[in-house]
Amino acid sequence: MLKNIKIVLIGTTHPGNIGAAARAMKNMALSQLCLVAPRTYPSAEATARAAGADSILEQCQVYETLDEALQGCRLVVGASARLRTVHWPQLLPRACAEQVWRESAEGEVAILFGRESSGLRNSELDRCHYLVHIPANPEYSSLNIAQALQVIAYEIYIQSLSDNGPADRGELEAVASMETLEGFFQHLQQAMLDIGFSNPRQSEKLQRRLRRLFLRARPDPEEVNILRGILSAAQGRKSMRRQ
Amino acid sequence: MLKNIKIVLIGTTHPGNIGAAARAMKNMALSQLCLVAPRTYPSAEATARAAGADSILEQCQVYETLDEALQGCRLVVGASARLRTVHWPQLLPRACAEQVWRESAEGEVAILFGRESSGLRNSELDRCHYLVHIPANPEYSSLNIAQALQVIAYEIYIQSLSDNGPADRGELEAVASMETLEGFFQHLQQAMLDIGFSNPRQSEKLQRRLRRLFLRARPDPEEVNILRGILSAAQGRKSMRRQ
Repeated sequence: MLKNIKIVLIGTTHPGNIGAAARAMKNMALSQLCLVAPRTYPSAEATARAAGADSILEQCQVYETLDEALQGCRLVVGASARLRTVHWPQLLPRACAEQVWRESAEGEVAILFGRESSGLRNSELDRCHYLVHIPANPEYSSLNIAQALQVIAYEIYIQSLSDNGPADRGELEAVASMETLEGFFQHLQQAMLDIGFSNPRQSEKLQRRLRRLFLRARPDPEEVNILRGILSAAQGRKSMRRQ
Repeated sequence: MLKNIKIVLIGTTHPGNIGAAARAMKNMALSQLCLVAPRTYPSAEATARAAGADSILEQCQVYETLDEALQGCRLVVGASARLRTVHWPQLLPRACAEQVWRESAEGEVAILFGRESSGLRNSELDRCHYLVHIPANPEYSSLNIAQALQVIAYEIYIQSLSDNGPADRGELEAVASMETLEGFFQHLQQAMLDIGFSNPRQSEKLQRRLRRLFLRARPDPEEVNILRGILSAAQGRKSMRRQ
């Protein structure tokens, strides 16, 4: 489905932005890049900024007009600063990603990014089913196009992952069992006595506090072993002294 | 609260990335940029790529060491590719944004971005309570640092819009500052030597593991005092023996 999502850059002025866009796309597993009337392309600067994503550039399609680039698309979304004067259906990036992802199961979808200086023209907005608007600092709301693409592609990629199951498997790690922890807490209490840090009557509140600290840390069994080794070493000094 | 969020770029090689990072920050209403040992800074290229965000560059702090940049921070999050071999608490960007936003109500929070070529070093990861990992194409998972920053800053900005502050203040407890924790870690290392538990050459991996354990626990200043008291008591035995 990600293959059905076209990124269309219109009238891009700086080739570095084309390269950065290619990299952002590949990072987020998008592959279809279309350039409409780029000012300078191909370009060594685009290739340099693409880093390892030059395959995206090699396969990209260059068109003279937007309509050629949009042939066969079932949905067109334009990336735009918030337009207050025009009543367009506007989506936030997350809602945009849901819609784009859902529709990409059915056919090709295009997301348009306009010129660095002036964005999308009215004739280009006219092709859009929706506009997607990235919330931004009202005092400085214009994102670089590769940065805007990164945010939107990230939301689409997250959407693609959540659709196939949890993004991050193996999140749960082994933690020490409660009996292992109890053994440690007893050892800690004894060691604190042995080294002369505390006596049992005073230390109940302190012990409780230390328990909370270590429970919060969710130590795994090996970490408990390390901690007990340290305690034993501290106690060992004492038994050596006694001898 | 956004003012309490520090973006820390470590050892950045390309000044263009510093400029792009400044722009991404300003777009997402972040203002505190720290540079640790940048290769080339100030730079005309950074200023050019910052576009209208040169105010961020003018106010940025440049440090020689990471510890200086982290002074007074209550939470440190490192941006990193997914680490499969190391058991670090890892967050997705959205969960990271929630945590960062919540804690920024209480004090300063730092998000670290490593070198373009090699990311964060072990000694830098050692300072992190959490790592944040941006899900990406497994075949090409390394994002440009300004792009990675854009995604994370976007999630934080979204969080700031959806929430006008923690509903229940006082939920967050005081946690020890990074310099307090560093003092404790040094004490722990010394104590482990003094009690004969370890020698410095063998113990690097072990120290790292203990750091992670205690960072995870987010001890408060009083807890650090208790732990240091225990360490001193363990060490005291030794000095008593020496006499």
